[in-house]
Amino acid sequence: MKVCIIGLGLIGGSLALSLKKLPFINEIYGIDHNIEHQSKAIKYNLVDKIIDFKEIKEIDIIILAIPVNGILSIMKQLDEKIKETATIIDLGSTKETIVKNIPANIRENFVAAHPMTGNEHSGPDAAIEGLYNDKVVVLCNFEQSGKLQQEIAVRIFSGIHMNIIYMDAHKHDRHAAFISHMPHIISYSIANTVLRQEDKHNILSMAAGGFRSMSRLANSSPNMWEDIFKQNKDNVLNAIDIFQIELDSLKKSIKNEEWDNVYKKIDNGNKLKDIFS
Amino acid sequence: MKVCIIGLGLIGGSLALSLKKLPFINEIYGIDHNIEHQSKAIKYNLVDKIIDFKEIKEIDIIILAIPVNGILSIMKQLDEKIKETATIIDLGSTKETIVKNIPANIRENFVAAHPMTGNEHSGPDAAIEGLYNDKVVVLCNFEQSGKLQQEIAVRIFSGIHMNIIYMDAHKHDRHAAFISHMPHIISYSIANTVLRQEDKHNILSMAAGGFRSMSRLANSSPNMWEDIFKQNKDNVLNAIDIFQIELDSLKKSIKNEEWDNVYKKIDNGNKLKDIFS
Repeated sequence: MKVCIIGLGLIGGSLALSLKKLPFINEIYGIDHNIEHQSKAIKYNLVDKIIDFKEIKEIDIIILAIPVNGILSIMKQLDEKIKETATIIDLGSTKETIVKNIPANIRENFVAAHPMTGNEHSGPDAAIEGLYNDKVVVLCNFEQSGKLQQEIAVRIFSGIHMNIIYMDAHKHDRHAAFISHMPHIISYSIANTVLRQEDKHNILSMAAGGFRSMSRLANSSPNMWEDIFKQNKDNVLNAIDIFQIELDSLKKSIKNEEWDNVYKKIDNGNKLKDIFS
Repeated sequence: MKVCIIGLGLIGGSLALSLKKLPFINEIYGIDHNIEHQSKAIKYNLVDKIIDFKEIKEIDIIILAIPVNGILSIMKQLDEKIKETATIIDLGSTKETIVKNIPANIRENFVAAHPMTGNEHSGPDAAIEGLYNDKVVVLCNFEQSGKLQQEIAVRIFSGIHMNIIYMDAHKHDRHAAFISHMPHIISYSIANTVLRQEDKHNILSMAAGGFRSMSRLANSSPNMWEDIFKQNKDNVLNAIDIFQIELDSLKKSIKNEEWDNVYKKIDNGNKLKDIFS
């Protein structure tokens, strides 16, 4: 089968490297409006060829690996231009607006997916093998995809060793706000807090693993994250509100020297590891 | 020289493993009020022998690797019980209260140090080789330590491949609040925010590297961190205040759909990597 990946950055480029190993994928093409990304994708051997958007009608599997607002706009152009049996998989980080806006005549072709992976880097230079290995992918409103498209999506994601979970797009967006979007906002805010200090160089000279861990996400791409906050605005604001209540409560306990409460809150935070393990 | 490490957890135990490699260290003894820690420290070969506190007068280098409130209380007991030429190095995470409370007659024996290392684990099981390698150690109010003690501290910390920086204890505590203590408080609050959600298992099933990065510190020991927040209360509260202003401002921009401002704040957060690299 012929695959075309639209968007040859960290997510699309790394997926290309994984798809190459699947026996049912014969050719991997790429589309990217950024000319530098096009030449790097060829140079790094991520894709076999850069194609023009009008060649999309020859493609069996179309992957949308661009920021969510780009997905919303390209969806409308795919309408009527694709093979009847084509599978379109979007990898956007928010899902409800996307699922609501899929044109009716390509609804069965479409699979809405969110691979819970990535890192703070971006562009084809950041593409790495194994980015998807053992990670979770959330497939949303899967019952609305066609039978063939469901089969292909499962073959692809299990083929690249991902753990598939199924979820309604509305619930996905709420969960993603807590597990990913709100933590990113906090990381940006921590970075900006320290950067605003007069003696920031002095402070950062002391930085160890803890700070690096908490500020790593603050390196993530503004283009991608502005879009995510736009698309998932209400859930993100809600998650921040709840976080702020939690933070205020711990701050208040410290301020009032209620050390038993401080201990309890820390100890409760420790419970996360019991759930993870 | 004979070393005794008081506190055989992650910090003390890992230091023991590093000190073993230094040619001028002949014997490493340990003290820990926890009997299980004592036997594990022997079993894992962290120390040569567990000694009694009254044997401290035979020791050349005494390392205090216990929570900060413990350091404050043991300091008073060391008074008059130590060798005249002994070097006492404390590894506490806050420094101002410690430095202010060193008994005058052992002031020259004392070196106040904060190694910027560690992780979310604790106890002798967590002790690992290389925890100190290439990390920063902050030496505070160093000019108040004796010449011999200064020399020994520098030999030790450079011997275990640490980068030494010198700082006034007051400034250290302010910086540590931003670079370490406030981020820990945020990590606990993120963990508690998600743990409080009704569908926490569902949310956590989606957890990827980003969330793990932001919640890792929430596994840190309550005993140690309650003490740090106690000792550095004012600086910690101040750092939280400033973080809250930053977070509120980003939240407000999202709420009001001021996407240019959102982009700018994200883009500014990205600048951290220019300073780190």
